Amino acid sequence: MVSSTSASGPWQPIPGGLTAPRGFLAAGITAGLKPSGNPDLSLLLAPEGAVCAGSFTTSLVRAACVDLCADRLKASGGQARVVLTNSGQANACTGERGLADSLTATAALAACLAIAPEQVLICSTGVIGVPIPMDTLLASLEPLIAALSPAGGDAAARAILTTDLVEKQIALETSLGSRSVRIGGMAKGSGMIHPDMATMLGYLSCDAGVPAEVWQAMVSRAVARSFNAITVDGDTSTNDTFLAFAAGEPLASEHWEVLEQGVTAVAQHLARAIARDGEGATCLIEVQVEGAADEAGARAIARTVCGSSLVKCAIHGRDPNWGRIVAAAGRAGVRFDPEAVALWLGEHQLMAAGQPLTFDRPAASLYMKERAAGTYLGSDPASSDTVAIRLVVGEGPGRGTAWGCDLSDQYVRINADYTT
Amino acid sequence: MVSSTSASGPWQPIPGGLTAPRGFLAAGITAGLKPSGNPDLSLLLAPEGAVCAGSFTTSLVRAACVDLCADRLKASGGQARVVLTNSGQANACTGERGLADSLTATAALAACLAIAPEQVLICSTGVIGVPIPMDTLLASLEPLIAALSPAGGDAAARAILTTDLVEKQIALETSLGSRSVRIGGMAKGSGMIHPDMATMLGYLSCDAGVPAEVWQAMVSRAVARSFNAITVDGDTSTNDTFLAFAAGEPLASEHWEVLEQGVTAVAQHLARAIARDGEGATCLIEVQVEGAADEAGARAIARTVCGSSLVKCAIHGRDPNWGRIVAAAGRAGVRFDPEAVALWLGEHQLMAAGQPLTFDRPAASLYMKERAAGTYLGSDPASSDTVAIRLVVGEGPGRGTAWGCDLSDQYVRINADYTT
Repeated sequence: MVSSTSASGPWQPIPGGLTAPRGFLAAGITAGLKPSGNPDLSLLLAPEGAVCAGSFTTSLVRAACVDLCADRLKASGGQARVVLTNSGQANACTGERGLADSLTATAALAACLAIAPEQVLICSTGVIGVPIPMDTLLASLEPLIAALSPAGGDAAARAILTTDLVEKQIALETSLGSRSVRIGGMAKGSGMIHPDMATMLGYLSCDAGVPAEVWQAMVSRAVARSFNAITVDGDTSTNDTFLAFAAGEPLASEHWEVLEQGVTAVAQHLARAIARDGEGATCLIEVQVEGAADEAGARAIARTVCGSSLVKCAIHGRDPNWGRIVAAAGRAGVRFDPEAVALWLGEHQLMAAGQPLTFDRPAASLYMKERAAGTYLGSDPASSDTVAIRLVVGEGPGRGTAWGCDLSDQYVRINADYTT
Repeated sequence: MVSSTSASGPWQPIPGGLTAPRGFLAAGITAGLKPSGNPDLSLLLAPEGAVCAGSFTTSLVRAACVDLCADRLKASGGQARVVLTNSGQANACTGERGLADSLTATAALAACLAIAPEQVLICSTGVIGVPIPMDTLLASLEPLIAALSPAGGDAAARAILTTDLVEKQIALETSLGSRSVRIGGMAKGSGMIHPDMATMLGYLSCDAGVPAEVWQAMVSRAVARSFNAITVDGDTSTNDTFLAFAAGEPLASEHWEVLEQGVTAVAQHLARAIARDGEGATCLIEVQVEGAADEAGARAIARTVCGSSLVKCAIHGRDPNWGRIVAAAGRAGVRFDPEAVALWLGEHQLMAAGQPLTFDRPAASLYMKERAAGTYLGSDPASSDTVAIRLVVGEGPGRGTAWGCDLSDQYVRINADYTT
């Protein structure tokens, strides 16, 4: 379940998602916020003593709920236990009312749960520019709390979806010292490609205790290697949020490195699932860059290649077009020696020393066609339907990976025909 | 012919292109470099005493001919008179042979013309990774020189094309003091959307003398406001080059400002023509940003909106999707107050104070549909088929414009089905 490119170490997949780690409760219900009648309200309750790390959209135009989460985590040093998610309205571009509604919702929830409002966060996703029907939301808080359960991860994962085709969950487990530690996660997003009805939301739970500042640093590094390494169409949502909760017996610092491997593996799985669910996509694209001066440079090159419309179109057409890949790498804004470039598509080497090689073109094209035939659900995306590109740009120590999806005519039709 | 948004001042369009300015000779012939048999070799000869300013691709992976042009202009302080353009092979990713072939071609041409090799430049466009058939090119230099003519601008403009659907030329004239001054230009490029067969190339001629360093600064500013303000799919070619020649009686410095208006207008016309010729495009998109802290910030916002796949898809579908526009602006990396945003689509105001307004949606959609009905050729792109977006982001003095085109399913099909 975990990609061969992620150093997931001793972590093994287990059933479940956000509530697989001990002590976490979740729920998902239909409140009536979505015209479709699909589940639209979700709740996560972390155990007492939980710390929360957050990562938020860098967009200047962001929803009031994002400001509220960021401000509360900063003010409390990561002391938060609850997150409410409504998936009908994004509550972005709603002016002063947006913040007022977020404050009202979290205050009401805090009162019901008898905890401090500062420990309650809120995420919103859905239509931009439309306020949340607050009466509907407030009337649903009691039944939502009543539905909280240690088996509620599935329901929560369903209730945060908007235009997603599939649910996105994972749980991992390992032994650290004499104890078992579990990490769970869920996410939604068809890759920020429906800003009116999308948004990337990610949630992670962990049943080991970690000091708040250590946890935030660990989560920030994991986000850089996962959610910030995917691209579907380059568009960033007004509401993108990742929240990670850690609660449980404190974990000895000698195990933090292995814990971070697990956190990174969960985040990468969720990020890849979002890229794979990109609208109109027929495959996942994984670009590994090696030999750069540093990791950030390698990842920047990988992300630029992944984001190139021309590369995405070529892969959609199963065309082993090395020229588009190297041209995209060249404009990433990272220094490397073009004469040192070597390029592989799967096992097929296309370039060496900056120049094209003679290669078996039909076999390289077939490699890509076969990747598309795989099915993502329940299987390892890295082995089934992932087109793998490996680009060596020199002899430096920097390695980085990025993920994306192909660009299809269906993507254009969906996004052109979509009516606000 | 000149957009209402460009401050073209007293400049008036006149017939012709690169050879409209006095003293410039050009030619275009079929040398046999293209399998199609279309014209593929072009030559521009500027009058004695010409100075040349250049602007080149920022891609790290760039063709040897680009290095040669940049190095020669730097070493000589802009003393160049000749540019040869071959449009069959890009001569990129061809290793040491690429530079050797560029040196051989310019040396042979210099010998034929009896001028110093350092005054000869070369641009290449076409397939990446394939060397130029040098015997064919060298055997064609004599007939190419024989074809040089003061009426050769048209032939030259045809011979630089690759996948372009239309030729791109313009000439402007005005009176400065007691004399007439003319500026001509030609370009090719379907918007960097075919890196294997594309490249943006632009050329400008001017029959007024200007000191080399003044000319380079003037041209650099014009490029920032034109070629660097267009985007088709965000992909940069290995060969992108703009070369501007000025030769003639020295122009008094009091007229430099007006001259720059003309240079900018020519460059903007050519840049818009490239964006409009973007593959699969049905309209030109013009985004004007006002109220930013400075011009560079305004242009960065405009370019990000123009480059957003979601905005491009919405416009292709003639959907007045304000949410996608403001979300793209928010991720441009430029500070502004989201609460101050106002947005117009043509004459239709969609947002005020950062929030959506109630507007006549069918009329706004009809506005976009009508823009698509216009034809670009020979008419003013700003009035016929341009979808105009105006975004006010505050009260700062910064204004900037960017141009792009819509994203169609045809674009994807063309670039997916294209076989290397």
